[in-house]
Amino acid sequence: MQTLHVDLGNRSYPIHIGTSLLGDPRLIRPHITGHQVAVVTNSTVAPLYLNTLMQSLSGLTVSVVELPDGEQYKTVTELNVVFDTLLKDNHGRTTTLVALGGGVVGDTCGFAAACYQRGVGYIQIPTTLLSQVDSSVGGKTGVNHALGKNMIGAFHQPRCVIADCDTLQSLPSREFASGLAEVIKYGLIRDKPFFCWLEQQMDSLLNRDVQRLTEAVFRSCHNKAEVVAEDEQESGVRALLNLGHTFGHAIETEQGYGQWLHGEAVAAGMVMAAELSARCGWLNGAVVPRLTALLQRCSLPVLPPAGLSAERFVERMSVDKKVVNGQLRLILLNELGHAFVATDTPQSVLHEQLRVSCARADSQVDNEAARQ
Amino acid sequence: MQTLHVDLGNRSYPIHIGTSLLGDPRLIRPHITGHQVAVVTNSTVAPLYLNTLMQSLSGLTVSVVELPDGEQYKTVTELNVVFDTLLKDNHGRTTTLVALGGGVVGDTCGFAAACYQRGVGYIQIPTTLLSQVDSSVGGKTGVNHALGKNMIGAFHQPRCVIADCDTLQSLPSREFASGLAEVIKYGLIRDKPFFCWLEQQMDSLLNRDVQRLTEAVFRSCHNKAEVVAEDEQESGVRALLNLGHTFGHAIETEQGYGQWLHGEAVAAGMVMAAELSARCGWLNGAVVPRLTALLQRCSLPVLPPAGLSAERFVERMSVDKKVVNGQLRLILLNELGHAFVATDTPQSVLHEQLRVSCARADSQVDNEAARQ
Repeated sequence: MQTLHVDLGNRSYPIHIGTSLLGDPRLIRPHITGHQVAVVTNSTVAPLYLNTLMQSLSGLTVSVVELPDGEQYKTVTELNVVFDTLLKDNHGRTTTLVALGGGVVGDTCGFAAACYQRGVGYIQIPTTLLSQVDSSVGGKTGVNHALGKNMIGAFHQPRCVIADCDTLQSLPSREFASGLAEVIKYGLIRDKPFFCWLEQQMDSLLNRDVQRLTEAVFRSCHNKAEVVAEDEQESGVRALLNLGHTFGHAIETEQGYGQWLHGEAVAAGMVMAAELSARCGWLNGAVVPRLTALLQRCSLPVLPPAGLSAERFVERMSVDKKVVNGQLRLILLNELGHAFVATDTPQSVLHEQLRVSCARADSQVDNEAARQ
Repeated sequence: MQTLHVDLGNRSYPIHIGTSLLGDPRLIRPHITGHQVAVVTNSTVAPLYLNTLMQSLSGLTVSVVELPDGEQYKTVTELNVVFDTLLKDNHGRTTTLVALGGGVVGDTCGFAAACYQRGVGYIQIPTTLLSQVDSSVGGKTGVNHALGKNMIGAFHQPRCVIADCDTLQSLPSREFASGLAEVIKYGLIRDKPFFCWLEQQMDSLLNRDVQRLTEAVFRSCHNKAEVVAEDEQESGVRALLNLGHTFGHAIETEQGYGQWLHGEAVAAGMVMAAELSARCGWLNGAVVPRLTALLQRCSLPVLPPAGLSAERFVERMSVDKKVVNGQLRLILLNELGHAFVATDTPQSVLHEQLRVSCARADSQVDNEAARQ
């Protein structure tokens, strides 16, 4: 087991990464202060891992909330299901919430913890690659709104993160690849040696070699923890973690939540961000095919979905949180391993990029249809 | 105009108290950073004061959310109405919410500001006595749940509070009296000279003498600001502000929100807390009739509603936020002007107090029925 620390003063917390962690009470018990615990999980994860977790909670009063599985269930409705259980079971201010599942469970549970009685503690036990390397670290919590992703939420840091890489063996391959997109992102935006390591180790990772996986999760969390420690509430450098996300959110919202996985949308968004960076003259164009090749080895999309117009993209992007005083802030690249906040992207170049990406997506579908 | 400062480091803010403040742009404009504003108000307050406020917002892009009036409308449903408007009108992270109304509007708007895009700024413009002296100061925001009052919320400090005492002239007398209950509370728990001043000035206050009202609001906010500065998140001394509230919340929840006003429930709760303090031998019994007399001059209830049993009280109180590890923490008095946190109230004495108060309430109803 390896342990990282997210350094945030009196909100600091450890991230434990390794195997056989789920049933180990020594990791979780120091972070449970009262006698009440509420485990929030979903219908896919509960049958696989709930019993093991319950072993490390023996002797405590435990409520379990099982939500349906899927991004479309990250709404105020499921949040209320958590509140209903907490209140029915008389959970007080010293209760601890435990998120056992992927990003949807973690974000919903964390936001419930942020709001219940104006704030109680919670522990993240991410069981997907995406949540282990991204959403479980950094305290961003929240739910979606029909008009925008993650629009309702809070910054609320967990007391501890337990990333048990054993759980990655049961992950469907599409979900696994979706997590790899965020892993690749860390290399792309701030860690070129990690990007090169991923190019070398991708076959082992795709074979789910648990040693290599643990290394990839550790290196990803290490990158994220450094950024979060520097800028907890995203007033500066933390925004760099959003590379590909403004495009990606537009894709997810337009498709309806749950159609494309988050990492799939981010993969297509990263390629768009890299191409736009090159088109603006800020990035060496040779980075784009390297990125595209690595994503394609993971069977990740490198184009937006067919049928999405450049105009719809612009419309969706305008409600994104990254608009400041009407000015779109994009995260772009100036070299492999170095991202920056671009506030002066020429509108004409952005629109051209959107038109090219959308047209290419449409023609690829036509080609595939013609081949069949 | 008098100005107080709530001293909370980089979350410090001014409270302006006086007359003719609503239409004065010099007070509100320094706290609006972007070009977007959303005013959250209700159907009673909007026709009276919205136009005046809009004068101080000229030149900005303003959305208006008008909620129905009443404590029963402080729920997740109304919160979503605010989010719907913010998203439909493309409000970004630099938007500023403005709460124009009483405590329900302030708490809902403040919580919406805490959650929208994980936190935007807001300004409190309280238009009731209760909200001017209590809920607008201190950053407690939230909504009710069917199983408990203020169970879902956040600590989120406003950028500024503007208490225009002119608005108190239009307040219905029951609402006005409800605010006086919280004013009296400050004297009772930490400011004996203020309690004595209130005994002397109550006739002027009930006649809504604007000079005396401004003094009472200032002195109340001064007390609250001192407590909040010392203990922002209620880990200690701030709990003293809840004197009468554990009983009061049980009354409000049991009656259904909107039947008794908050201050009415707190008035009955304060008498119960004072009597219990005397019954435990902690408080000189002579304080109880002084408190009762002052509340009765304001036409406030000094007993719980008839028909509420001691058993229901205990049940309701057990889900209150003031339960810590299964132990009920009550705020009691050891002298006029001095409250303390009692964690060792004998259960038998508490139950006796509840039985006596409930029986007295029932018999008073019988007496009144017999007289009619």
